[in-house]
Amino acid sequence: MKVVIVGGVAGGASCAARLRRLDEKAEILMVERGPYVSYANCGLPYHVGGVIPEESSLLVATEQMFRAVFGVDVRTGCEAVSIDRQKKTVDLKNVATGEVTTESYDKLVLSPGAAPIRPPLLGIDLPGIFSVRTVPDARTIRQWLQQKEPPHSGMDSYTGQQIVTKPERAVVVGGGFIGLEMVENFVHLGLEVTLVEKLEQVMPPLDPEMARLVQRYLAKNGVKLVLGDGVAGFTQEEDGSLQVLTGSGKAFPADIVILAIGVKPETALAKAAGLELGVRGGIRVNEQMLTSDPDILAVGDAVEVKDYVTGQWTLIPLAGPANRQGRIAADVIAGRPSRYRGTQGTSICKIFEGEIGQTGPSEKLLRMLGDTDFEKVYLYPNSHAGYYPGAKMLAVKVLFRKTDGRLLGAQVLGEDGVAARINAFATSIQMRATVYDLEEAELVYAPPFGSAKDPVNFAGMVAGNLLRGDMPLVHWDGTAEGLLLDVRNAPELAVESVPGAVHIPLPQLRARLGELPRDKEILVICRSAVRAYYATRILLQNGFKAKNISGGMLTRSHRAAV
Amino acid sequence: MKVVIVGGVAGGASCAARLRRLDEKAEILMVERGPYVSYANCGLPYHVGGVIPEESSLLVATEQMFRAVFGVDVRTGCEAVSIDRQKKTVDLKNVATGEVTTESYDKLVLSPGAAPIRPPLLGIDLPGIFSVRTVPDARTIRQWLQQKEPPHSGMDSYTGQQIVTKPERAVVVGGGFIGLEMVENFVHLGLEVTLVEKLEQVMPPLDPEMARLVQRYLAKNGVKLVLGDGVAGFTQEEDGSLQVLTGSGKAFPADIVILAIGVKPETALAKAAGLELGVRGGIRVNEQMLTSDPDILAVGDAVEVKDYVTGQWTLIPLAGPANRQGRIAADVIAGRPSRYRGTQGTSICKIFEGEIGQTGPSEKLLRMLGDTDFEKVYLYPNSHAGYYPGAKMLAVKVLFRKTDGRLLGAQVLGEDGVAARINAFATSIQMRATVYDLEEAELVYAPPFGSAKDPVNFAGMVAGNLLRGDMPLVHWDGTAEGLLLDVRNAPELAVESVPGAVHIPLPQLRARLGELPRDKEILVICRSAVRAYYATRILLQNGFKAKNISGGMLTRSHRAAV
Repeated sequence: MKVVIVGGVAGGASCAARLRRLDEKAEILMVERGPYVSYANCGLPYHVGGVIPEESSLLVATEQMFRAVFGVDVRTGCEAVSIDRQKKTVDLKNVATGEVTTESYDKLVLSPGAAPIRPPLLGIDLPGIFSVRTVPDARTIRQWLQQKEPPHSGMDSYTGQQIVTKPERAVVVGGGFIGLEMVENFVHLGLEVTLVEKLEQVMPPLDPEMARLVQRYLAKNGVKLVLGDGVAGFTQEEDGSLQVLTGSGKAFPADIVILAIGVKPETALAKAAGLELGVRGGIRVNEQMLTSDPDILAVGDAVEVKDYVTGQWTLIPLAGPANRQGRIAADVIAGRPSRYRGTQGTSICKIFEGEIGQTGPSEKLLRMLGDTDFEKVYLYPNSHAGYYPGAKMLAVKVLFRKTDGRLLGAQVLGEDGVAARINAFATSIQMRATVYDLEEAELVYAPPFGSAKDPVNFAGMVAGNLLRGDMPLVHWDGTAEGLLLDVRNAPELAVESVPGAVHIPLPQLRARLGELPRDKEILVICRSAVRAYYATRILLQNGFKAKNISGGMLTRSHRAAV
Repeated sequence: MKVVIVGGVAGGASCAARLRRLDEKAEILMVERGPYVSYANCGLPYHVGGVIPEESSLLVATEQMFRAVFGVDVRTGCEAVSIDRQKKTVDLKNVATGEVTTESYDKLVLSPGAAPIRPPLLGIDLPGIFSVRTVPDARTIRQWLQQKEPPHSGMDSYTGQQIVTKPERAVVVGGGFIGLEMVENFVHLGLEVTLVEKLEQVMPPLDPEMARLVQRYLAKNGVKLVLGDGVAGFTQEEDGSLQVLTGSGKAFPADIVILAIGVKPETALAKAAGLELGVRGGIRVNEQMLTSDPDILAVGDAVEVKDYVTGQWTLIPLAGPANRQGRIAADVIAGRPSRYRGTQGTSICKIFEGEIGQTGPSEKLLRMLGDTDFEKVYLYPNSHAGYYPGAKMLAVKVLFRKTDGRLLGAQVLGEDGVAARINAFATSIQMRATVYDLEEAELVYAPPFGSAKDPVNFAGMVAGNLLRGDMPLVHWDGTAEGLLLDVRNAPELAVESVPGAVHIPLPQLRARLGELPRDKEILVICRSAVRAYYATRILLQNGFKAKNISGGMLTRSHRAAV
């Protein structure tokens, strides 16, 4: 059996290595357009920032290793240009020489990845505008940053000496994972950084009110944030520097620009071969990673996947899913019964001191799909026992089915312990756990790591309280009507009060029930909705109509703009 | 309804607070023998060590708060001395005055906790020997450590001046959680520390070969470790210092001794009342936390719980389960259908730079129960992408059902990212996931946090490879017979070689198959069993009999003594 694999990074390389382990006799040819196979593109922003100093660190497995250990014929600088599905051949072009050869296959695996989106804007090809997708991309950016004679250097008019300046002002276009990581790394390098994002929020997979917390980390670290304003073009100044023009008519000076506005699946080869594409523009595959041609499989960023929770076709270009898909494709070729279960979109991102984690769909995605059978809760537990040094507040948002309590999605932001919680939420989603299961979860606890009631337990309890009818919730979106009751203590109100709210500190509530109306809904607020929950219970059991304002003052504050 | 709760720390306090939220009208009386309710006994070692400087930090919720916010009548310094189940009354003694009063109850909740084991050894009551269970315990230890005129101070014979020495030598007896945390905190305070443990390993819930890694952290931090030698008694020297005598006849000098040899459930009250006790000596309760008397519930360290995985009755004195049990007891009293699902024994412990995590039963526990339907794998993945700075090797042991792949237990040790993995394993066990589910788990990945294939995925893959028959395993216990084949590279052998092994580096294996026997089992070893897996696949597919030596050189080394 001869298997040709197109693309040698995450999905392709995983497939090749797994296939060799399953089939010692198969002839495996892996071709890669770029100069490297199996490199760590997730590390590229950190290489640009010097956090990962050596380029060689990014090369996870080399061409030589694939040959020697896996007996895989590897050709780099080799692009697949066309497929003849009748003859079962693929034409391969040597990128350096242009020479085209034809290889036959029994099975063909497409893992071409995705390409950075590079719209045909004014000045898009000016020097100094980069994408961050490949090792050569990172090398070029590093060279640009270290340039000895940058476009805007010149002669000092007093001393007559050559001024060698380095880029000082970076504009990053796009506030997703790569954009944010580039922002952090540029700040780390001492550049003045502006982030331009077309949407009204950074980190599009998050809900906007949670993204605001990311925006706080950016502001805190001196990043200039331009939201709701897309890039419209680029011009070059006389000194060689760039101006980044936005849709609203603004211009931002830049010595370097990073375009990180997303990627699109590389489908040209598949499309030309007549393979079915999906609704979102990726290659359509089934659970066995088979395309519409049963001898052609496809994996990685180029394919559409089923969202594990919503069941919708989607594009989720992440390394973990790509690796698993490559492995499953190899299994399928070797005749094994493996199936891909779909992608949850579990992710994490470090932005300065912040850790930003997510798994499962966001609220806005559910709404976009017309889903109304869900509820949400916000909570703000400590990352570990408050009495042990270094505890940090986590911001947690959890989405779950109203009807049966099934966990749908979770977003966790903070400065410590985010991975430990997202992994628990992600596993819970994978295993179709409910919020009642979260209540009973037995997670790690010792003072440096957690609390006897972990944030994940708390999330389950808050959600369970809501679903059981113990704690009616209202969300701070201005639509709820009723009497606002603030149960915080007086010193907290001195810092920030709620206009129009009646104030009764929680410890006085039972004695002062007579001051409250029985005919009106009472909306209870405190700092993080814990005391308001206690108050709501007191009110409900005393015959009042009461609701807890979800997430309290904390959610109120991050629902407001930074 | 009147509810009396005996014991006001984790389980009792959780029960009281939850019950008030469910029932605003109930009369709730919570009595606590000690001076504080709801304090953080998990923080006590860190308070002794000064990591948590203020004692007040340990008081999670005060008596005043229980009164004001929860409307709970709290009596500290109040001990329940007897129960009259016929009359449904409990006698309460004021610890200070000795006065006894009688309270009636509709429901009685016992949350008396567990007491440090303090065997009647020679000299056990000598000054300087302490347990670490309560806030007063910690206060006494701190005072001892700061003593101005310790027993061994005196006059300097040359200068005639008073010598004020402080304790310099600590002996900690018992290498469980509290013992290890005390060791760390004493080292932190600059004391010379000896740890005496009766078993041949520290951290009894771990398997011994994993505990060896903990022992390395102790050795690295200058702790003198005495294993397999129990304490036999104590004597006092003329200068007032102590000698800790062991069963083997050794003596260790000490200025302070901590007894941390475990706790036993406080069952005297329950026993005297004729309540059923369990096989392990704890109070027997059902899933509703009801004792053999339907009007008496019991929670926390005093009760026996069902092991969630093995189904056996056991004692697991941990704060998380105690809190959940308290909550469930309140639910049950309020007429709700809550049930306790059992305890997994999820735990984590920080020992110097090490993070020690576990969930589910150990191998030795399964063997003790006569369970043979399980397999185990060892692996040594990085805590995060190796190319990003700060990655640390994790040591992972996973136990799973041979027949159906169900995950049974996991032990993870390392210096980073242990909580994130144990939480994923713990949730998987809770949801009855299999190792095949672990293979497909979608966990967080970004270079600072993980790898595209997370250690949890790897654990699933290694286990799945074994169960599918792709990778026969042999454990390094000296019983396996066959030809040892070392597939590491020459420079690695120079550091440590395996006596009697044939050496063929993996990349040369295919070309040198002729050198290997076809009639003999070939046992393949490398550093961490990854390359040996590749080699095993090559051998098996070429008609050889081959097995991978689980965990490779790394497991071999920590199976050997420190």
